[in-house]
Amino acid sequence: MIAPSVTSWEQVAAHKKREIESAIPSRYYVDKTLLDSHNAVDLPRKSGLMTARELLITESRAVDLVKFLAKRTYTAVEVTTAFCKRAAIAHQATNCLAVVLFEDALKQAEELDRYMALHGKPKGPLHGLPISVKEHIYLEGTPATSGLISWRDEISPVDALIVKIFREAGAVFHVKTTNPQCLMALETHSNLYGRTTNPYNKNLTSGGSSGGESALIAMRGSVLGIGTDIGGSIRTPSAFCGGYGLKPSIARLPHSGLSGLHSGMENIIGCVGPMANCIEDVQLFCQVALDYKPWEVEPSLMPMPWRRRRAEAVPKKLTIGVMWNDGVVTPHPPVTRALNQAVAKLRAAGHRVVDWDPKYHASLVKWINQAYFLDGAREYREALKEDNDPPVPILRWLMDTEGTQRCEVEDTWKLNVEHDRLRTLYAEQWRNSDIDVLLCPANPSVASAHDESRYWGYTSAFNALDLPGTVFPVSTVQDTDVWEGTEPVLSEKDVEYRAFYSNDGPSKYREAPVALQLIGKRLQEESLLAMTEVISNLVRADVHVPSGVVGDTVQIQLGAAGKVTHLLEKKDGVNVRVQEVMA
Amino acid sequence: MIAPSVTSWEQVAAHKKREIESAIPSRYYVDKTLLDSHNAVDLPRKSGLMTARELLITESRAVDLVKFLAKRTYTAVEVTTAFCKRAAIAHQATNCLAVVLFEDALKQAEELDRYMALHGKPKGPLHGLPISVKEHIYLEGTPATSGLISWRDEISPVDALIVKIFREAGAVFHVKTTNPQCLMALETHSNLYGRTTNPYNKNLTSGGSSGGESALIAMRGSVLGIGTDIGGSIRTPSAFCGGYGLKPSIARLPHSGLSGLHSGMENIIGCVGPMANCIEDVQLFCQVALDYKPWEVEPSLMPMPWRRRRAEAVPKKLTIGVMWNDGVVTPHPPVTRALNQAVAKLRAAGHRVVDWDPKYHASLVKWINQAYFLDGAREYREALKEDNDPPVPILRWLMDTEGTQRCEVEDTWKLNVEHDRLRTLYAEQWRNSDIDVLLCPANPSVASAHDESRYWGYTSAFNALDLPGTVFPVSTVQDTDVWEGTEPVLSEKDVEYRAFYSNDGPSKYREAPVALQLIGKRLQEESLLAMTEVISNLVRADVHVPSGVVGDTVQIQLGAAGKVTHLLEKKDGVNVRVQEVMA
Repeated sequence: MIAPSVTSWEQVAAHKKREIESAIPSRYYVDKTLLDSHNAVDLPRKSGLMTARELLITESRAVDLVKFLAKRTYTAVEVTTAFCKRAAIAHQATNCLAVVLFEDALKQAEELDRYMALHGKPKGPLHGLPISVKEHIYLEGTPATSGLISWRDEISPVDALIVKIFREAGAVFHVKTTNPQCLMALETHSNLYGRTTNPYNKNLTSGGSSGGESALIAMRGSVLGIGTDIGGSIRTPSAFCGGYGLKPSIARLPHSGLSGLHSGMENIIGCVGPMANCIEDVQLFCQVALDYKPWEVEPSLMPMPWRRRRAEAVPKKLTIGVMWNDGVVTPHPPVTRALNQAVAKLRAAGHRVVDWDPKYHASLVKWINQAYFLDGAREYREALKEDNDPPVPILRWLMDTEGTQRCEVEDTWKLNVEHDRLRTLYAEQWRNSDIDVLLCPANPSVASAHDESRYWGYTSAFNALDLPGTVFPVSTVQDTDVWEGTEPVLSEKDVEYRAFYSNDGPSKYREAPVALQLIGKRLQEESLLAMTEVISNLVRADVHVPSGVVGDTVQIQLGAAGKVTHLLEKKDGVNVRVQEVMA
Repeated sequence: MIAPSVTSWEQVAAHKKREIESAIPSRYYVDKTLLDSHNAVDLPRKSGLMTARELLITESRAVDLVKFLAKRTYTAVEVTTAFCKRAAIAHQATNCLAVVLFEDALKQAEELDRYMALHGKPKGPLHGLPISVKEHIYLEGTPATSGLISWRDEISPVDALIVKIFREAGAVFHVKTTNPQCLMALETHSNLYGRTTNPYNKNLTSGGSSGGESALIAMRGSVLGIGTDIGGSIRTPSAFCGGYGLKPSIARLPHSGLSGLHSGMENIIGCVGPMANCIEDVQLFCQVALDYKPWEVEPSLMPMPWRRRRAEAVPKKLTIGVMWNDGVVTPHPPVTRALNQAVAKLRAAGHRVVDWDPKYHASLVKWINQAYFLDGAREYREALKEDNDPPVPILRWLMDTEGTQRCEVEDTWKLNVEHDRLRTLYAEQWRNSDIDVLLCPANPSVASAHDESRYWGYTSAFNALDLPGTVFPVSTVQDTDVWEGTEPVLSEKDVEYRAFYSNDGPSKYREAPVALQLIGKRLQEESLLAMTEVISNLVRADVHVPSGVVGDTVQIQLGAAGKVTHLLEKKDGVNVRVQEVMA
């Protein structure tokens, strides 16, 4: 609780900073000189703070961790400790934590270990797995401020449904992660929490609004995170930080229990979804969430279980639409290059690839930008003014650009009619093209420089369409990623965006991950994830993974369970599988 | 087209009346003295205009008709002719037709007969089946006025999706049926079309807003009709006229292609659904509609086929919640008596019956009444004023009562939050009670006297909850249906409603059907229909059916197909099955 006498936002923020820092044990602080590097991804290894076993744990997949936890290869306490330590290191490099819950997490873990000792079986399918939670999602007893100074003392009254489900499934909650002021930005910056940076390049943003999650997961301070997405807020940060993310269809996954402005606005609805380092973990999230039958508790959800057999029904040879640009903003050179490489590999593997005409995208983007601010941003302005919380640059830009027109109730109906018209036309185009999945950029840019994330169209169009989307890493920015100079100018926004990636693009964006997006049919998340696995295994190539992991065989003494060899397979240069071999 | 010089609503209405009457062949007009009776259900038989074969055809189930049509037992032309004739007779008694399409229907039927002759197989699963369409649903080239004088020249630009699907399935469209001024009433009265009356008692309403359908179907001028329901507009008229109706969950059945006010308003969404004389035909409607995969065309629909196996999974012994009243208006004596009889029969058959606490109903009804008029009825007033179309009494009452407060955009968000809160509480109650289905009145009254349908809560609460609901006939008003005098007064509305059924209730409402409502789980229409079949077969007893049909064995020479016996089984006093026996 911040004393009521504290009034300036600077004082509130300073207090918040101390609160976070003091919850991190001093033994988790790295040597400050290590923080100078622009790239922090290897910091946990370089820090000397983590044991080999802790590195192994934190670099495992969630699907493997829960298996090992269930077999008592690992205890919940040691897994939690490893992730707390690594989350602390991640925070020092990227400022990604909003709430530090290490003490509480260890208590949860101890309880789970006791449960295991007593019952000889795991509490649930996520027994002992640490999961990170975006700040505005309710986690009982923790702040949920949406990055607002005026909401600094808002404490989650209950667990959000997704948190409740995961808690009952045995998950441990060790941190909440930063989100931007008012939540409405593709970068993560607020007066309350400051700015979250990209682990691969601190001059770039980790994306937003789930940008604390994406930075933390890229640093492997979390193996699975809960994000939210109403315009790209899961997909953009995942893409910017080289992770995997899913924006499901509206009403597929539990959504109740969020703080945030515009509560009850339903002209466009956001989604809760998973963020992770591999597609198997994204699937684990969905499966556990839906095995709970959340629609019996949250009645607006689809009564639709996770249909495992849908994944098997995906055709061996896919028909893939490719949208090279959305007709509004030309993707930057690394993105177009990655898309070209992906298409070549997909064709070589026998998939059918057809061009996708983005004819409705400009209208969809225009539509959703209107839908975000039906009140002319009145509620934003009131929430900010209340405590003199000046809009950070990215929010000021947004409000000045999009949040200027206030609607009458009839205007919102007209907007709904236009929405329906556009969705229907898009469905017709999809039906006529008969594609299984649509491949496209996740953003025109790789991770933007701070305050330059000013176009959401590549993700928000699919919120408008209510089509599920994944992002997955395929590459890293290369020195040869330069403009051809022959690309036609698509719009004014294109001119603005082109200037960001000027002649020095490869050095401005160096080491930034390059990601792509896949769009599936509505409420067919099972097929979309199956196709994402096939396609991403095929096309990802030169993705950076923490050193010392790929291709090595690591032997570690694993306590009571005996000697276990973790074999990390390398396939096409990428760490794809962690296998356990009992010796 | 009505000449632009015509301006007074009376002149427009007179022109409309002539238009309808002149489209009915003079040979279809009955002896005027036959129209004096208060009860018109037997008029088609008494008129002497219909052959025995035409009577048999029009009194068959749709599921049987399509079977006979597919086998060429009947031709499409003879089936269409029979229904045109009977619809014409129904209209003379009840004023239920808005658009007469006999000529066009016969052309459609001739084409289908040619198709059959050429291909030796039906065009689709509804080959040759006449289907009636509520007036505001688009049927290409026909008026869709929503009962408004000012919209008198609005012509459907295309077929609504449901019409398109049925047309492709081989259906014939012979009539459009009346709906009330602005569509927003549980009775069917407009300046444009006049008043539609109840076939069982002309002093009572046929219900609304799909009240042309309900009157026509009760008279068997149609075997299957397309209605719409945003507060009870399928269920109330079906209940008032002794028919079967389904309001499905939102987005389950095709919904695009309706005229109507408040287009794009999505705080509460209406549904298209079936109206019929038996549950099998209701199911046929759903099955054909969903076999088309309408979600590929109308993207807001659920991608959810008709799951035939769900019906089989319904437990043999059901747990049935019973809501005796909704806490706002006490049901009139015939309704409570019918509910008592139903419960006794259900218990006797081994089903478990538990009382349902209506604790959230008053709030739900209040909520939805606000949602209907977010614009303070501004659009209604504008549409009416435009051509001096004075509100009919039931609409004037509604606008004066509910359409007075205009919302700001933020008010609509608050309303959505309250909606979610109520739905969540209701879901919790349902989960805790663990019922399979909820049995309750469809309305506090049997068919209301004209201008007295002033409470929608028994149906509209389930629109607010987005739970699917069916109605089915169980009884007829009896002389012994009088107030006990001990019922507690629930509200001011209760006092108003009680007065309608005063001491002379049994004579005021004589021969009116008594119906009940069943509510299922969201998007589980398959199970709800299966349970409706079980329960209605068990509890319906003394329902009036046209004389000369029940229990008889009718032998008719059926042309080329040979001699066929139609055996009409009587079970518990009710016509339940039509079987074909080849001799």
